[in-house]
Amino acid sequence: MRAGGTGDSMASASAAQAPHLGDTLARWVAASDWRDIPAPVRHEAKRALLNHLGCAIGVARDPAVQTALAVIRPFSGAASATVIAQGVKLDPMAASFVNAIASNLLDYDDTHLATVIHPSAPVAPPVLALAEQRGLSGEDALHAFLLGMEAACRIGLGVSPGHYARGWHITTSAGIFGAAAGCAKLLGLSAERTWHALGIAASQSSGLVENLATAAKNVAVGNAARNGLLAALFAEAGYEAAPAAIEGPLGWARATGDPPDREAIAGALGTRWEATRNTYKPYPAGIVFHAVIEACLALREEIGPAPEAIASVGVAGDALLLARGDRPVRNERDARVSIHHAAAVSLVRGRAGIAEFAMDAVADPMLAAFRAKVAAQLDEALPRGAATVSLRLADGREVRRTVTTPRGSLENPLSDRELEEKFRSNAALGGLAERSGTLIDSIWAIDTPSPVTGLCHLLA
Amino acid sequence: MRAGGTGDSMASASAAQAPHLGDTLARWVAASDWRDIPAPVRHEAKRALLNHLGCAIGVARDPAVQTALAVIRPFSGAASATVIAQGVKLDPMAASFVNAIASNLLDYDDTHLATVIHPSAPVAPPVLALAEQRGLSGEDALHAFLLGMEAACRIGLGVSPGHYARGWHITTSAGIFGAAAGCAKLLGLSAERTWHALGIAASQSSGLVENLATAAKNVAVGNAARNGLLAALFAEAGYEAAPAAIEGPLGWARATGDPPDREAIAGALGTRWEATRNTYKPYPAGIVFHAVIEACLALREEIGPAPEAIASVGVAGDALLLARGDRPVRNERDARVSIHHAAAVSLVRGRAGIAEFAMDAVADPMLAAFRAKVAAQLDEALPRGAATVSLRLADGREVRRTVTTPRGSLENPLSDRELEEKFRSNAALGGLAERSGTLIDSIWAIDTPSPVTGLCHLLA
Repeated sequence: MRAGGTGDSMASASAAQAPHLGDTLARWVAASDWRDIPAPVRHEAKRALLNHLGCAIGVARDPAVQTALAVIRPFSGAASATVIAQGVKLDPMAASFVNAIASNLLDYDDTHLATVIHPSAPVAPPVLALAEQRGLSGEDALHAFLLGMEAACRIGLGVSPGHYARGWHITTSAGIFGAAAGCAKLLGLSAERTWHALGIAASQSSGLVENLATAAKNVAVGNAARNGLLAALFAEAGYEAAPAAIEGPLGWARATGDPPDREAIAGALGTRWEATRNTYKPYPAGIVFHAVIEACLALREEIGPAPEAIASVGVAGDALLLARGDRPVRNERDARVSIHHAAAVSLVRGRAGIAEFAMDAVADPMLAAFRAKVAAQLDEALPRGAATVSLRLADGREVRRTVTTPRGSLENPLSDRELEEKFRSNAALGGLAERSGTLIDSIWAIDTPSPVTGLCHLLA
Repeated sequence: MRAGGTGDSMASASAAQAPHLGDTLARWVAASDWRDIPAPVRHEAKRALLNHLGCAIGVARDPAVQTALAVIRPFSGAASATVIAQGVKLDPMAASFVNAIASNLLDYDDTHLATVIHPSAPVAPPVLALAEQRGLSGEDALHAFLLGMEAACRIGLGVSPGHYARGWHITTSAGIFGAAAGCAKLLGLSAERTWHALGIAASQSSGLVENLATAAKNVAVGNAARNGLLAALFAEAGYEAAPAAIEGPLGWARATGDPPDREAIAGALGTRWEATRNTYKPYPAGIVFHAVIEACLALREEIGPAPEAIASVGVAGDALLLARGDRPVRNERDARVSIHHAAAVSLVRGRAGIAEFAMDAVADPMLAAFRAKVAAQLDEALPRGAATVSLRLADGREVRRTVTTPRGSLENPLSDRELEEKFRSNAALGGLAERSGTLIDSIWAIDTPSPVTGLCHLLA
């Protein structure tokens, strides 16, 4: 039905014939078979889950998580889904809400760098909660989690980078589609019902960058998880959505400001896997500070643990590093995005874990004094994500180290063993140290027909 | 601190000094005293409540409402808030969710014409549910409801008309601020905590015009009510939001596409009342069809109830009427926005109530045949909202009627008695006919220090 004419009219005819994005994604999700998914992709889903669960465990005692639990608890139905490391069950929506908040609280969770989505936080909690409530298998839960991450990252990619730049916190605004897709898969919805679930999710999508430095962000992360599950349940019950809820003239992508990139969203399904472009942080600090930390840790190895022998520290990086990180440190949020604090903890304590970015560390007089020794400067020759650290020592020597691809970057990913180490540190903070080995083994072995309830019991 | 300079730089200095919108609104909400509010404004809040509750009662047996109740019920905490006309209580968030969906289901609820917000649906349900749960007074509930409507309509006005035109269903995307403000007032939050509640609500704001013709809309209406209450509860518990969550460079207004109009949002607080610009529909059809209905009803009075004597019907209106209403009728949604159906039920049945726009009426062969006699045509001389109906009779006569300000318009508002009539019709449909008089009396008398629980008991 393509009449001859200009390129424009052909493009427009082609667009008119193009299938709806929700339809294409939904067909793929509904038809997906776990056995057809390449082994490295399936393994990556387990790595994401291990990282995700560790992050949620690590902050179990954080007041923000405790408050979220206290506020939502009176609004929960029958206790059927585990709230991680709290010794409490809630209904699957309420449990998803709290678990999503916890896993993303410190931004220590995974990052899909192409979109800056933290994909596990909105997707894994509702999938696990629903699987636990219904006694579904670990394999089904992992499969649904993987497909949900794909849906979230692909839809986010289709509106990037404008979406985030315009003020949309893409982890929640795109993440909700992943929660809906994952839950739809787990509920065994047809392609048509899954399409409606995505469309219902579109009308619940929210989250603002303006609020990122505040706890208002946490509520949106919790709701992305909760409302994705809600969308799938309403689709299951027969509620419908508009066919073009994602790409229509008054649909999600354009209302948030972007004509969607169809290929990024619905191209190469089953061959391009966004999960393999996911990354995991070794340090609970902004990702641009990781090179600073690694350069400092390496220099400390070289000169030995003697911070008093360091007269001054120069940190050079690109414009983004300086824009994000050259600031006073008054609280934990500042600390996680401070060049000065990142250098101080790495050189003084030789560690950059959760404890090093907590309020105790912010207030530590020795670290405060050391932060004052650190000066940041621009080096436009350095690529994004890289840093050069130079120490001038009290004896007059100068030592220097440049890190270009820190651990946790796409080029230098954390190994499975390093992810296990991170998990163990988080488990210790969350009070689950003694069972961290069992948990790690259970997560690596999740993809079996056994119900996921065993793992959930260990997580309680 | 205004340095001399161009108008632009002064404006920019002034903008820099302008208080945050959330702060200004929150201070006003927190400080508002019921006794300072003019009596006509307080009465308008009761009229809105009467209309709202009637609409929710009228659709109590609708499958969409029954489905919403069935889906959300397993996810409710302790039963403490009435689900209207269902004989069921749920927790305040779950009850708000269902009641908001019901009251807006047919778009038969109130309309703030300047923004096309349906202000009661997202605001009244969480306010009433919270007041019932906590045993608060009817006066406090009505006060919170009024302030919530003001917050929703003012914030909506500040981004109109671009916001809706770009795809945002403003009833939910702005309505959530009203739910948060009303609940914050009822919780007795300080100005600062109310400011945070508005900011948390900003990150939960959602709802798409693309989905308006589907049940996905209903989920968003329910969530606007539910999440506004959630925002207030999190603000009460100490969660914070960014100071400029509404107007900041990466905040709500700009992310959704508009630089906010500060005066529309925060000007003349306490003297300009958007509640007095609210309207109530006498017919459950799109508001542009009301003039068609009234012209037809008047002509039927004139010629008598003999539809077989009508050979053909001409309906003339402006471009908006024709764009919205000249379409085939396959279901109830079509019927509510059809020139042909509006004329048919008015001329054949002499009524245009809920029953006349239900599926039975859509499928009625006599109405279907009559719809085919109706032809629509453009009359650019007619103002928006007006219509001229001409009947050519079998005996050769022609009669004609023009209606410019139909009942329910700002210029020709429904009287209190007419609102009571509408309530009674709705109550009969919802199975509460025998107590409609008691309910009407209770709603007119709600503004007392007595707990609102008495009214809620009658609504059960």
